[in-house]
Amino acid sequence: MKEWDRLITVEQMEEATAALLETGKKVGADSWQQRVKNQTPHCGFGEAGTCCRICSMGPCRITPKAPRGICGCDVHGIVARNYLRFTAGGAATHSDHGRSIAHTLYLAKEGGNYQVKDPEKLKRIAHEWGVETEGKDIYDLAHEIAEMGLMEYGKPFGTQRYLKRAPQHAQDLWKAADIEPRAIDREVSQSLHMTHMGCSSLPEALIRQSLRAGLSDGWGGSMMGTEFSDILFGTPKPVDTTANIGVMEKDMVNIIVHGHDPSLSEMIVYYANDPEMIALAKEQGAKGINIAGVCCTANEVAMRHGIPMAGNFLQQENVVLTGACEAIVVDVQCIFPALGPLSKCFHTKFITTSPIARMPDSDFIEFHEENAGENAKAIVKMAIENFKNRNQDLVNIPQLKTKARVGYSVEAIKKCLDGVTNSHVDELGTLKPLADVVKAGVIRGAVAMVGCNNPKVRPDTAHIELMKKLLQNDIIVIVSGCSAQAAAKAGLMDPDAKEYCGEGLKRVCELVGIPPVLHMGSCVDISRMMVLAADLAKDWGINISQIPLCGCAPEWMSEKAVSIGNYVVATGIDTFLGVDPYTKGSEEVTQLLQGEHGIKDWVEANYTVELDIEKLGDRMIETIEAKRKALGI
Amino acid sequence: MKEWDRLITVEQMEEATAALLETGKKVGADSWQQRVKNQTPHCGFGEAGTCCRICSMGPCRITPKAPRGICGCDVHGIVARNYLRFTAGGAATHSDHGRSIAHTLYLAKEGGNYQVKDPEKLKRIAHEWGVETEGKDIYDLAHEIAEMGLMEYGKPFGTQRYLKRAPQHAQDLWKAADIEPRAIDREVSQSLHMTHMGCSSLPEALIRQSLRAGLSDGWGGSMMGTEFSDILFGTPKPVDTTANIGVMEKDMVNIIVHGHDPSLSEMIVYYANDPEMIALAKEQGAKGINIAGVCCTANEVAMRHGIPMAGNFLQQENVVLTGACEAIVVDVQCIFPALGPLSKCFHTKFITTSPIARMPDSDFIEFHEENAGENAKAIVKMAIENFKNRNQDLVNIPQLKTKARVGYSVEAIKKCLDGVTNSHVDELGTLKPLADVVKAGVIRGAVAMVGCNNPKVRPDTAHIELMKKLLQNDIIVIVSGCSAQAAAKAGLMDPDAKEYCGEGLKRVCELVGIPPVLHMGSCVDISRMMVLAADLAKDWGINISQIPLCGCAPEWMSEKAVSIGNYVVATGIDTFLGVDPYTKGSEEVTQLLQGEHGIKDWVEANYTVELDIEKLGDRMIETIEAKRKALGI
Repeated sequence: MKEWDRLITVEQMEEATAALLETGKKVGADSWQQRVKNQTPHCGFGEAGTCCRICSMGPCRITPKAPRGICGCDVHGIVARNYLRFTAGGAATHSDHGRSIAHTLYLAKEGGNYQVKDPEKLKRIAHEWGVETEGKDIYDLAHEIAEMGLMEYGKPFGTQRYLKRAPQHAQDLWKAADIEPRAIDREVSQSLHMTHMGCSSLPEALIRQSLRAGLSDGWGGSMMGTEFSDILFGTPKPVDTTANIGVMEKDMVNIIVHGHDPSLSEMIVYYANDPEMIALAKEQGAKGINIAGVCCTANEVAMRHGIPMAGNFLQQENVVLTGACEAIVVDVQCIFPALGPLSKCFHTKFITTSPIARMPDSDFIEFHEENAGENAKAIVKMAIENFKNRNQDLVNIPQLKTKARVGYSVEAIKKCLDGVTNSHVDELGTLKPLADVVKAGVIRGAVAMVGCNNPKVRPDTAHIELMKKLLQNDIIVIVSGCSAQAAAKAGLMDPDAKEYCGEGLKRVCELVGIPPVLHMGSCVDISRMMVLAADLAKDWGINISQIPLCGCAPEWMSEKAVSIGNYVVATGIDTFLGVDPYTKGSEEVTQLLQGEHGIKDWVEANYTVELDIEKLGDRMIETIEAKRKALGI
Repeated sequence: MKEWDRLITVEQMEEATAALLETGKKVGADSWQQRVKNQTPHCGFGEAGTCCRICSMGPCRITPKAPRGICGCDVHGIVARNYLRFTAGGAATHSDHGRSIAHTLYLAKEGGNYQVKDPEKLKRIAHEWGVETEGKDIYDLAHEIAEMGLMEYGKPFGTQRYLKRAPQHAQDLWKAADIEPRAIDREVSQSLHMTHMGCSSLPEALIRQSLRAGLSDGWGGSMMGTEFSDILFGTPKPVDTTANIGVMEKDMVNIIVHGHDPSLSEMIVYYANDPEMIALAKEQGAKGINIAGVCCTANEVAMRHGIPMAGNFLQQENVVLTGACEAIVVDVQCIFPALGPLSKCFHTKFITTSPIARMPDSDFIEFHEENAGENAKAIVKMAIENFKNRNQDLVNIPQLKTKARVGYSVEAIKKCLDGVTNSHVDELGTLKPLADVVKAGVIRGAVAMVGCNNPKVRPDTAHIELMKKLLQNDIIVIVSGCSAQAAAKAGLMDPDAKEYCGEGLKRVCELVGIPPVLHMGSCVDISRMMVLAADLAKDWGINISQIPLCGCAPEWMSEKAVSIGNYVVATGIDTFLGVDPYTKGSEEVTQLLQGEHGIKDWVEANYTVELDIEKLGDRMIETIEAKRKALGI
């Protein structure tokens, strides 16, 4: 077995983490591992979704002796309301990321901090939205599209523009189910209104709105986040990078970018490459500047610049614990408030930049699109000047590092497929070759694996073990978010990881020249997966729900994940969860989400919640095989 | 003592309720009184705000042994996040009411279900918003203003139009504190985003956004709700009505309208007066049709049509328990899901009408602005045809009924004041006469009393006892929402209730011809109080925070109340609460909201939470006297 060929195991990662926690102990650092112990067992009412704090008459908790809250709401109403609120939190958050990018696009200008890097994509979207491009200045066009995009958040009439990207059948289902999302923010506000004291308590209505709010994210805000990021920063293409904690460099200034919005990280990357800054780093005794990413920011800068990925959600404390992190620069979402006190145990600067994510014990450098360059330069400089404060006695960078090929946008996938097409007879730029290998059974199907880490699951194990199982069963895996990083850290994004696949998938990987786990980006980029599924259904001539395809979030933890789950299911893709979404307290809600005659009757897909990861994998394989059988392939 | 002069006491109301609960027992009905027993004691973590369910790693609960959640958020971040989410729920809900009215205005047409009843007000708003009115068809103008109003929910740039109504000083404070609200829905979405896992945990930032979200409601959505309702249904003028459960009629078809949005109740009232419907009622053996209101809908139809007010929030079950309720017709907010099963114990039809408020065990007749007439007629007919199903053995209408004068919009108050102005020397249409009597000390000041009932307070007692105390101290009381109904039910809105006032206030009531407790409308109409305070400050030449004026919600329970509290405080009005807003778990948040150097530094006002109602009254009187002293009056 070659060096590359040895996957990094969870055990190795845990061993590295244990060593880092030893350093933490020396300096009196807290850790999530300890906080989980302190917080266990969790409140049973909260976990079951049966606690209501929506008005100040309560809180109310449902028990056999107290079957209704003070207002008279029963357990099903309470669980369903909580579920909708959870979704609304996710949809608002995810979509707000898209809004931020739209504002950045609105401020893009020739020679400015932000420029149009993919004018072709901008024009494609303009055509899609019925905007004349002929003879128009590219920045005028960018501003026009940005403003139209911003209006998708608040327009008083009509539904989301991107819904039209879906196959007609999906659009028809959404219309019939009355879940076509209107303005994104309106769906968020309506979700809060419906769940306000004395409004909806009918689970069916609440779950319907959960799907609608989710769709406003996936086919609205998130999709704009993805598309506008591509216009501004370039549409991802396959690029090689490295992953795992060993990407941090002992002799360099290490700046970790963490969060989600590429508007910040792109600028940091830019200034880390500035000769002036590199010279300054050398002056300070470092060999240079090393940028590495954590969480979705890692995905953003990896797929556009090949920046290494230091870790995913539950490793964010690890980067500080190496003792070699000069600055951890964050924007929004999934940032542990723990980084504040933790950074104080080291020399690390914890730099918050967004008014959306203000945290105690951080240096707040407000990041504005208007003076992004200046802000980014100041941050990079602060990190460099902090290099001298590093306590070398505390430095420990575990030597875990893998190769990974990332950046499979839908455009990139189509381009890869073009390479195996007979250009004399076949149409280029379609997903037909993919449909063909699935039909032929060379690949049995696909799983879109996404989502976070959650201490309720042994971190990364579910991601990695499920992927290995699927690959062995000739099921190709597309990934995003922290699931993508789990794959990368283990080595599953190395093209040579084809060796772990069944014969069919291995052949496809060789032929097309791809790794068996395809990196599609950050968590907003699950919208890419929706476009992929939509285009595949159209190119194949079937409905999305007929494709041998599953969604899976085995270690999810955030509200965004539930919003995502809702739009993935509403798109017609059966979705498998390894963590319960606080709904087990209501049989009615459970049936609606997971049963044969709930949301499945509306959108032809539903949820499976299975905490046993082995079984979760089996259920996905069964689902894929059942879909194949139904198609007669 | 004359007959009118005897206030209906809380004891009498409780006695009546006890009798109704006896009926309930006979038919196996549940009641909030029983459910409160089942749900007590409440969860201490929930009540203190120290439980977090924002991601699925938890729930986490803060204790001395577990001082941080799994993400590392401390108790202050958790309490502040919960507070912002509570506010967002209220702001979204309240504002969505305004949006619904704006949509109704957009559909108004000559001869249609909805018409422009106050074209002058429409034109005033058009001028305020810089819209040309000259030569424009009134309905074209209505649609233009409605669309502009709808854009206030989602416009990508700029802040709320109505902010300009505030005195310059308030506008300056908002700007300096960075709490000028942008699009209403955007503030809601941003609030959810800020409180998402891994975003803000800095209490100051979270509380700032709470004020901003509140302002987007009070000076945005709610204000549009009020203003557009006036355009459509007429600006309220003083009108006499009756209140308390005795307004139900033994020999008539009783239809209860309950909820908030006048678009529904106006139509029901219209068709209840339709000769065809009255004839049908008589055919069915009834003497006619009696409409009565519960909750804010009661306020809406009382102040525009003199429709009697059957009760407030915690009496909604009582109307069914009379056995004489043919239908309880609801739209949105504060509707007990308990009405479903309760109505099944009687002949009562529980009719839900809004997709926002779907409830089990109800007849759902979806109410659309487009076919509102048809919907309303069907509902009225259903109620009439249900009269014959009444079980006379169960009928018990407690004989409690008071007189009340309601409908004091700002316009109406100014008109009353014009009556005591010397038209030869004084400007008309101002609040100067009010300023003058306050300056002179004839009235010491004013309290805006608002909000719900909450079983944590003996229902209505706080409202009524505080009002009596304030009146005796020559403090005029302006009211809305369920507080207004408490006053009306007790008899404090009878002009003759001046007898309960101190000498100064009594004289003013006599001179101006008003009751000492002024009914300003429903809970969205707290925006009227904001305009009143703003205009008074301008006419007086002082800042709002200098006026001897307090806000008070002694029995609040809903998220809306917290949104309201935030915009009232942010407007510069010290606000007194009789129920804790789930924040006592954090000293830091408590200090921000209630201390001398939190929000008070930003907006010149703060909160007082005092569960002892006697002390709450004393604190308000002290505050008013301190403000007088500071003004040197």
